[in-house]
Amino acid sequence: MSVSSAASDQTVCTPLPVLGRDVTVPLVTGGEVTYAALDYAASAPALQRVWDDVAAYAPYYGSVHRGAGYLSQLSTDLFENARNTVADFLGCRPTDQVVFTRSTTDSLNLLARAIPADCQVFVFETEHHASLLPWQDARVTYLNAPRTPQQAVQTLERALADRAVSAEGGHGPALVCVTGASNVTGELWPVRELAAAAHAHGARIVLDAAQLAPHHPVSVTDLDVDWIAFSGHKLYAPFGSGVLAGRADWLQAAEPYLAGGGASRKVTRREDGGVAVEWHETAARHEAGSPNVIGAYAIASACKALTEAGWDSLVAREQHLVRAVREGLAEVPEVRILSLFGDDAPRVGVLSFVVEGWNSSHFAAALSAEYGIGVRDGLFCAHPLVRTLLGSDPQSQGECGAPEAAPGEKSLNAIRVSFGAGTPDEHVERFVDAVKELVRDGAKWQYRTEEGRCVPAV
Amino acid sequence: MSVSSAASDQTVCTPLPVLGRDVTVPLVTGGEVTYAALDYAASAPALQRVWDDVAAYAPYYGSVHRGAGYLSQLSTDLFENARNTVADFLGCRPTDQVVFTRSTTDSLNLLARAIPADCQVFVFETEHHASLLPWQDARVTYLNAPRTPQQAVQTLERALADRAVSAEGGHGPALVCVTGASNVTGELWPVRELAAAAHAHGARIVLDAAQLAPHHPVSVTDLDVDWIAFSGHKLYAPFGSGVLAGRADWLQAAEPYLAGGGASRKVTRREDGGVAVEWHETAARHEAGSPNVIGAYAIASACKALTEAGWDSLVAREQHLVRAVREGLAEVPEVRILSLFGDDAPRVGVLSFVVEGWNSSHFAAALSAEYGIGVRDGLFCAHPLVRTLLGSDPQSQGECGAPEAAPGEKSLNAIRVSFGAGTPDEHVERFVDAVKELVRDGAKWQYRTEEGRCVPAV
Repeated sequence: MSVSSAASDQTVCTPLPVLGRDVTVPLVTGGEVTYAALDYAASAPALQRVWDDVAAYAPYYGSVHRGAGYLSQLSTDLFENARNTVADFLGCRPTDQVVFTRSTTDSLNLLARAIPADCQVFVFETEHHASLLPWQDARVTYLNAPRTPQQAVQTLERALADRAVSAEGGHGPALVCVTGASNVTGELWPVRELAAAAHAHGARIVLDAAQLAPHHPVSVTDLDVDWIAFSGHKLYAPFGSGVLAGRADWLQAAEPYLAGGGASRKVTRREDGGVAVEWHETAARHEAGSPNVIGAYAIASACKALTEAGWDSLVAREQHLVRAVREGLAEVPEVRILSLFGDDAPRVGVLSFVVEGWNSSHFAAALSAEYGIGVRDGLFCAHPLVRTLLGSDPQSQGECGAPEAAPGEKSLNAIRVSFGAGTPDEHVERFVDAVKELVRDGAKWQYRTEEGRCVPAV
Repeated sequence: MSVSSAASDQTVCTPLPVLGRDVTVPLVTGGEVTYAALDYAASAPALQRVWDDVAAYAPYYGSVHRGAGYLSQLSTDLFENARNTVADFLGCRPTDQVVFTRSTTDSLNLLARAIPADCQVFVFETEHHASLLPWQDARVTYLNAPRTPQQAVQTLERALADRAVSAEGGHGPALVCVTGASNVTGELWPVRELAAAAHAHGARIVLDAAQLAPHHPVSVTDLDVDWIAFSGHKLYAPFGSGVLAGRADWLQAAEPYLAGGGASRKVTRREDGGVAVEWHETAARHEAGSPNVIGAYAIASACKALTEAGWDSLVAREQHLVRAVREGLAEVPEVRILSLFGDDAPRVGVLSFVVEGWNSSHFAAALSAEYGIGVRDGLFCAHPLVRTLLGSDPQSQGECGAPEAAPGEKSLNAIRVSFGAGTPDEHVERFVDAVKELVRDGAKWQYRTEEGRCVPAV
């Protein structure tokens, strides 16, 4: 199979250089092969540019927050410039705040603590756990899985309209949390329409862009969302930082996410023996402790690299790979691609599937051991969604990652292939060829389950 | 002044190689000089060994938590091995958990959320904000500043003994939080004795080792503490990770620190429309989201490097530098070193001082601009302690870092010099010489306050 011939109508740029592109791994059947990293949806390799920027900065690393030394001032400026770069990347409003967190999960947990006490939260059951779980159970409405983008909007509108009216005759604050691109199916959600529906009903909306931002331009203003959350490690900057960006008011009114230095402006003993604290009202309010300067700088570097590469060509290239995978897998009747919105729904470079007659862990293990291809099997930290898509017993066992499963058993989980700006055609070609060969010829090796992993039997 | 002659009785090893050791910075008076990073207490440069390990690993970075690919499995193993390395470094008990956080501040906030609902917390007002503020005001007893280590133990014993007896006739759970080495004075606190006092009164104790671990061996078992918290970025591993290590029971019983994937074992829709979650009981319970693998690996690398360098020689070398600073500053009558426990109290390489007739921000700015020396001025995120030591008005203005202050005004803050395993003798020599020269001759340049920083006037 050749990817290039499958999409010759596209102007397709070359992949962006990433770390690990030359790493070889041993095959259980003998020999070595360059590693095909096709688990970008879990974590993407660092862009070479990001690494080079981090490496160039590292000797100049210094304590931030106004140490008096030259390197401290340089590092402080670099940290605050990173904030500005992210604000530009996300098309933030002038009054928005950009808070550096550790990840999307952390960003959404921060927002969950910052929402007003009487805020109602609306979230689809199809969300992954990072956006499904941070909200306190009591005030959350879980919306059933929609089967079209239109249905998603209608479902949300109905739920918002059905809100109980308060004693004062109005609605209290409400927040909608929605993912931009599913981490399971890769499908795009109608964010702009959901945002319009939310605002029409007096609610706010946070966009979980963990899977969208690495693949697609995202803009607070264009989409008219109130907040955006994303992770550095999925955006080719795996140095422990994430972002929550958006409206300042709820963030400024909330208790600090972490209590400590950096978030506190002034601390004094009170007459009664207690301690009085004045907290910052800037992003620092929620960034107590020494910030992860390298992590923030790495994110800013990735934002610049993606912007400079140009979204048009990045999207064109990725869609060319998506088509190659879809067309390749379409030739294998045993393969069923999972989809909420239908096979033709627009999606980023994330596809999950099951193979008839194969346990997914077994299949993924064979892709790794016999072809040097790294995919992921499991429920992808989106248990309710994957069970809905698989139609499997919702009470069935499912570890986040890879459940215990013996080779040959009925699949209770799925296989996910995901890729992005660093993926060469060859990785996707090898993947499609490997799927065909495994389905046709079976695995060449025996596998067994060891500590929850399906591994080659020695 | 020569450091070597001042401590010729010691076998003093060479400094460990750190990043930035050859970085030069411009002087306002003309020319360039290698940067003397003397703000280790805020953040230390990366050990060259840590950087080399990170650089060697970076191309092999992969999604952890059981991706099926070779690099995912390698990264998962590396992450869990990092946990084991930290457990060894801290002398953990077999049943202890090691949770990777983002920093000491984060670790203590995690523990604050994990303590039993009726837990009483005891903390000295002399703590820095990370250990002073995370505990909820209502159930915290702030202990007055002791003036000797013995007084610290007596104060704690008295406070614990004075606890109210519950309806059942016993004491409820209690936690003592204490810093191992002050981030202001560098003085060592009697951790072992405080731990014994805590345990004798049925309380537990967490050691804030942010300033101790980079300078001194720390052991859960030797000190008999219940938890230890520290930060990577002060331990020569500035990649956004920290650690909370210690007893598992409270951590396992607590709500997950962050809600999301990785912390959740199984998620299902409930009959009533809600969502049911089974959480992990391992350290993963409090590590939701994709872990910062590089951050954890960097910490493990630093732990190994310090252990291999040998604490005896590291401590001997640092104490040789401490003596050089003390002896050098003792020759300047205008300098007053801040101390809680007395001038001769044992301390790590962290010293704060004021200079008679000088505004501290002005002095620190001159050290940077005219000598290429990076120190810190301010209240060091330990406002009550610094005000106690300065004897200044507790209502006085004080930003964390550097307050607004015009050159020449009375000092409301202090100057801190701090160093560690990467500091060459020359940095300390240059610092002492610079202090003497500034006090004797005054600054060569004019300074002004700009956006809260004292900077050279153009």
